[in-house]
Amino acid sequence: MSETVLIRNASQLITMASHSKRPAVKTAMSDIGVIEGGSVLIENGCIVEAGEDRVLCEKYKSRLKKAKQIDAAGKLATPGLIDPHTHLVYAGTRENEYAMRLAGQSYMDIMQAGGGIHATTRATQKAGVEQLYEESKARLDQFLLHGVTTIEAKSGYGLTLEHEIKQLEVAHALADNHAVDIVSTFMGAHAIPYAEKDHPDRFVERVVNDMIPEVARRGLAVFNDVFCERGVFTPEQSLKILEAGKRHGLLPKIHADEIEPYQGAEVAAQVGAVSADHLLKASDAGISKMAEAGVIAVLLPGTAFFLMKEFADARKMRDAGVALALSTDANPGSSPTHSLPFMMNLGCLKMGMTPEEVLTAVTINAAHAVGAASKVGSIEPGKKADITIFNVPHYLMLSYQYGMNHVDTVVKNGNVCVEGGHLL
Amino acid sequence: MSETVLIRNASQLITMASHSKRPAVKTAMSDIGVIEGGSVLIENGCIVEAGEDRVLCEKYKSRLKKAKQIDAAGKLATPGLIDPHTHLVYAGTRENEYAMRLAGQSYMDIMQAGGGIHATTRATQKAGVEQLYEESKARLDQFLLHGVTTIEAKSGYGLTLEHEIKQLEVAHALADNHAVDIVSTFMGAHAIPYAEKDHPDRFVERVVNDMIPEVARRGLAVFNDVFCERGVFTPEQSLKILEAGKRHGLLPKIHADEIEPYQGAEVAAQVGAVSADHLLKASDAGISKMAEAGVIAVLLPGTAFFLMKEFADARKMRDAGVALALSTDANPGSSPTHSLPFMMNLGCLKMGMTPEEVLTAVTINAAHAVGAASKVGSIEPGKKADITIFNVPHYLMLSYQYGMNHVDTVVKNGNVCVEGGHLL
Ligand SMILES: [Zn+2]
Ligand SMILES: [Zn+2]
Repeated sequence: MSETVLIRNASQLITMASHSKRPAVKTAMSDIGVIEGGSVLIENGCIVEAGEDRVLCEKYKSRLKKAKQIDAAGKLATPGLIDPHTHLVYAGTRENEYAMRLAGQSYMDIMQAGGGIHATTRATQKAGVEQLYEESKARLDQFLLHGVTTIEAKSGYGLTLEHEIKQLEVAHALADNHAVDIVSTFMGAHAIPYAEKDHPDRFVERVVNDMIPEVARRGLAVFNDVFCERGVFTPEQSLKILEAGKRHGLLPKIHADEIEPYQGAEVAAQVGAVSADHLLKASDAGISKMAEAGVIAVLLPGTAFFLMKEFADARKMRDAGVALALSTDANPGSSPTHSLPFMMNLGCLKMGMTPEEVLTAVTINAAHAVGAASKVGSIEPGKKADITIFNVPHYLMLSYQYGMNHVDTVVKNGNVCVEGGHLL
Repeated sequence: MSETVLIRNASQLITMASHSKRPAVKTAMSDIGVIEGGSVLIENGCIVEAGEDRVLCEKYKSRLKKAKQIDAAGKLATPGLIDPHTHLVYAGTRENEYAMRLAGQSYMDIMQAGGGIHATTRATQKAGVEQLYEESKARLDQFLLHGVTTIEAKSGYGLTLEHEIKQLEVAHALADNHAVDIVSTFMGAHAIPYAEKDHPDRFVERVVNDMIPEVARRGLAVFNDVFCERGVFTPEQSLKILEAGKRHGLLPKIHADEIEPYQGAEVAAQVGAVSADHLLKASDAGISKMAEAGVIAVLLPGTAFFLMKEFADARKMRDAGVALALSTDANPGSSPTHSLPFMMNLGCLKMGMTPEEVLTAVTINAAHAVGAASKVGSIEPGKKADITIFNVPHYLMLSYQYGMNHVDTVVKNGNVCVEGGHLL
């Protein structure tokens, strides 16, 4: 589209400018770039300039004559939100296990008894492409309604080459047809298939020798992820899988130290992972190594909230110089939500992050965590015109008026996709 | 209106039938009355009958010919939600104090320095009726969008006869003009005015001798409430205020034992309060006395969540035979949210309540807590046709898909007020 669009006069425009080269760490996470009375000029789906309304209107007077105008007066405009860790594509729901957990059973017990990830794997293997597409599309719509314009999506409920590829292909089909951008991650090492539970090494070989090469050959994923946790994949197996991915051009990510300290953060640093995710039980040494190696911490407070656990120590990681991102971890077992704004609430209220830090964590730092910071995550000239407008006048309100969805308008590549809180 | 309306074929219809006479306690809180494939026949704004779709369609064949039909297939229908504790009418917001709290200051410190309730009191005293009405109406719309059809609303930001009456009159004007029903509570004893902080007894006299009689004379409130807490009103002062209300026909409610154990639950039992609210620090003896006296516990988990405190011990109260209700405590300081569904999430995840218990707590038990159980709170013949339809197939999903608003349709007195998640 060659249309000119002007988002006008937001009560606050949060640009996140100046963090596109590298993720914001420590005090830089407070530098969110607020413009009061801010406007954004968009052409051909890209940002031309952001600045004070008065200045922009003067500078681009002639171009603006036939611009489509979006009035943001009294509202807050931010970079489109980015969710850097989701298990978007799967079939079925697991509310029954939720009831079991409320009655006292643990997540890992349910999984080891063949429920949990195994239950979703059975449902996903059985599901046809069309069913998977439709169920996942409904979730993607919800993400968009909650202000998200870019999402990472992992496979890992197929657990065979055939079904992993099916999941990744559904993600690609969604990427082609849906407004939200999708960054694909291969996660064949999400669980050891139930039938293989006594032969974990055999399954690791299959991931390394069969799955990774074929997924890479078909260009179906950018990242390669592994669930490093006692009873799932050991640190040694995780390292092997992530190194194999690197040889095939897949960038490493890791589910690390969620349930107990298990050297996950250390593996992340060693392998040069783009991000290590969860980290509730990460060791101090692991955190230091992550900071040194520039591994981003993707924190998933919804999972801690929903599994009724302690939260990751965000402040400790921030103080150690680790860059922080926030995500829903959307999945049918440990975090069945699609609200990244609610993760911002939890970031402030449960992890001691500041309102500025949580905004950074769901925009530019999340963009870095999915390798997309050159294109999205901030409102700067040349970037995609992905902008979320909230029906509040100040960014503090997003966490203050908690537990609610304040998204009013979502602009993706310069197109209005959500208006007045409704999908167009 | 004399229209006939048929809500058809809800995947689950939750009736809450059989608790209208007295609030559900202990295992009765699990008895939520599920009808699969349930329909509700409505005439003149009232419920005629609820039952299986097949049965209703057969029985009322002739009447249904010109009925307006609402298709609830695949959806969950419940009694319209009831929020039994809100501070709906006030002016301004306090997101600045939220940032102060995130930086380490306590709620009571902020209040004692003249912020907190005092800040909202200054803004509310200054505000004209029109401003108060408009700000409160916007909040009431949000409640409706989150499935609420009846709400309790307290005064208590006026703190002089003139301004308390102004607040109560705004609540009455809203009740007259808005779909949501409002039950009014006088709460002149919400705080000791900052200027009177060294003369608390003088202020208590004013509440007892000037305010309560005049509010009662004008018929502006059903309930009388007091903030019984160290540094606010003592148990003795609270008792005096609540007894004075009773003499003028105002039913007692109490903010009890929120911040420290302070005999609030005991006062509630002694005075025969309809409800005692908060109760994070209620003593075991106080809880027993509440059970004996039939005082309903209105739990406000959002406030604990937002103030980053421990939650009330819902299980202990339930086991002691206290009836439980849940509420947002919506107010600009300690709980600036309008999502009762999110309180249900917190009830399950943070207070150990079951999904059935939280549903009971926001419908029929909440109706009892506001003295309206003969008219609302369950789907039974003769009651108001207040029904909320959620875009999920099973009630477990409401808490499973957490942090999101699943309300699709709200019917109030037989009229559709919200459709597809939007206000009509
Ligand atoms: Zn995950
Ligand atoms: Zn209150």
